[in-house]
Amino acid sequence: MPNVKKSERDLIRSIRALSGRTANRQVRVGIGDDCAVLRPRRNEELVLTTDFSIEGRHFVRDWHEPEAIGHKCLARGLSDIAAMGARPIAAFVSLAVPRGLTRAGKGKDPWMDRFYRGLLRLAEREGVTLAGGDLSESPTLAFADIIVLGAAAKGRALLRSTARPGDLLYVTGSPGGAAAELAALAKNPRRFRGLEALTLAAELDHPHFYPQPRLRTGQALLRRRIATACIDISDGLSTDLLHLCEESRLSAEIDSNAVPIHPSATLDQALHGGDDYELLFTAGPQTRVPQRVGAVPIHRIGRMVSSEGGKTGITLTRERNGKIERVPLVAEGWQHF
Amino acid sequence: MPNVKKSERDLIRSIRALSGRTANRQVRVGIGDDCAVLRPRRNEELVLTTDFSIEGRHFVRDWHEPEAIGHKCLARGLSDIAAMGARPIAAFVSLAVPRGLTRAGKGKDPWMDRFYRGLLRLAEREGVTLAGGDLSESPTLAFADIIVLGAAAKGRALLRSTARPGDLLYVTGSPGGAAAELAALAKNPRRFRGLEALTLAAELDHPHFYPQPRLRTGQALLRRRIATACIDISDGLSTDLLHLCEESRLSAEIDSNAVPIHPSATLDQALHGGDDYELLFTAGPQTRVPQRVGAVPIHRIGRMVSSEGGKTGITLTRERNGKIERVPLVAEGWQHF
Repeated sequence: MPNVKKSERDLIRSIRALSGRTANRQVRVGIGDDCAVLRPRRNEELVLTTDFSIEGRHFVRDWHEPEAIGHKCLARGLSDIAAMGARPIAAFVSLAVPRGLTRAGKGKDPWMDRFYRGLLRLAEREGVTLAGGDLSESPTLAFADIIVLGAAAKGRALLRSTARPGDLLYVTGSPGGAAAELAALAKNPRRFRGLEALTLAAELDHPHFYPQPRLRTGQALLRRRIATACIDISDGLSTDLLHLCEESRLSAEIDSNAVPIHPSATLDQALHGGDDYELLFTAGPQTRVPQRVGAVPIHRIGRMVSSEGGKTGITLTRERNGKIERVPLVAEGWQHF
Repeated sequence: MPNVKKSERDLIRSIRALSGRTANRQVRVGIGDDCAVLRPRRNEELVLTTDFSIEGRHFVRDWHEPEAIGHKCLARGLSDIAAMGARPIAAFVSLAVPRGLTRAGKGKDPWMDRFYRGLLRLAEREGVTLAGGDLSESPTLAFADIIVLGAAAKGRALLRSTARPGDLLYVTGSPGGAAAELAALAKNPRRFRGLEALTLAAELDHPHFYPQPRLRTGQALLRRRIATACIDISDGLSTDLLHLCEESRLSAEIDSNAVPIHPSATLDQALHGGDDYELLFTAGPQTRVPQRVGAVPIHRIGRMVSSEGGKTGITLTRERNGKIERVPLVAEGWQHF
């Protein structure tokens, strides 16, 4: 075998070895065949999501340690699973990198190994098996596509399209932290060097670098029949609320005083920041919604109302100069184009 | 809503509309939620594959019409499903393109629309629902990741790892055509302009541009209990045979005279060319293997043997100067790095 080829096989072997630690019994065949083979349980439906992480778009190689990029790549997929109230089973990651990133340098392991290490640390913590993917050389950019497959009780997966008029609107955690940290990073990238091997407690202080998908919260919302509809706010609270409104053909009202704001963030960052992997959900007005699930606080921020003339929109209630005013809230979150 | 954002939503709407024509009943929720929701049948296991198509690596924008790129993107995924003997259920495509490719130009539809059109034409033909994906602006390159989910009878999906010593080795179709057409394309790209809306019959003349995944053949190999192991030869016959040998811990012998060669190709292209979406499979020596499945011919090209000292390898038997000689066959197919 030529050497180049051998290195590729070694690479797949080392990823296999790394990923072997987490074995989900519903994965019959993982890495190493044309496809992975999966065994769903009876009475469950499956949920599947896919998300890009692209250099220059979602991360900057000079700003983000590869472990953090790998962590966030998987966290993005897991957050979509959380939004369905589902349990993750298997992840697949397709990774394309310029050739240099497969080689060790400056006393550090190769970029690619460190990316997988960050991803697999989160996978292990959440009980997800890395069951396959693709590997390719990229002419220029580094980029990854994460695919996560999950399962939920049949007919019970939480959707965006099932909110009802009169439902109350809730959000987990305190949005805005990721946007605030990104703004600080853009001002002084050096301050954030070396965020590669954090403890879970330390990760909580870095919502931009190490977002925590709300899997247990989402599963509780489904299991305890709390949520009527759910979405994650990775595109920003305002933008994702609009998605939920459109899919449910409803409008929403938010009370600006009720929106929990991350200690380091502004109201604007909490409303439009994006990159927060919190859950936004609706529940019936009679439903008892807990103030927290585990360590994750839940706040009521508004309610769903019928759309006038079929036109969906969000109204923000705020106090200005001692008066209560109602203004349209324009969705200003993440734009895919 | 700002205009940019609106255009993105319009875009997703138009993809939804385009993809709505093919509806698989096992897809409960398709495009438009955090995840797709899928309903597997009882007594089936699921198979899942993911493959990149990257500009400058798998296609060249000046050489390949977007319809052909979209077709091949999905064909790559479907071919992995075929290699498992499975039935495709749903496809997911994540697409990243520079902003300009979302706009119409020179009297033509936007590149992105044409990409989806090529992909969806094949999806419709094969009964696959486009159930989700991701869309992103890319700083430079255009690239796509295809994910295909399929199903097979429980415990029956065809693997690479289950060939036995003494099994005979078979290949579908006539490999080498894709490599031969690629060589012709590299010499004279102009000759191949305008390959955007071909009939199925015309597609067969363009194995590089419009590869045909062997879904029905793979399904027959499983259903009729013919194959003991199977792989597609997208990386090239020699390289993928080595993968099969390694996973089954066996060696293989190929008779060079028995290898079917595409009319426009050389033996070298048939053995190492890559990009052929044919199936390579093994069957017991007593198994009756048909000479064709539908219109796809099947040829016996060699056999599996025990590995000496645990070292897998391929031996090629060929005639040279009137003598039969046995030489090691070095895998020289596609290298991911």
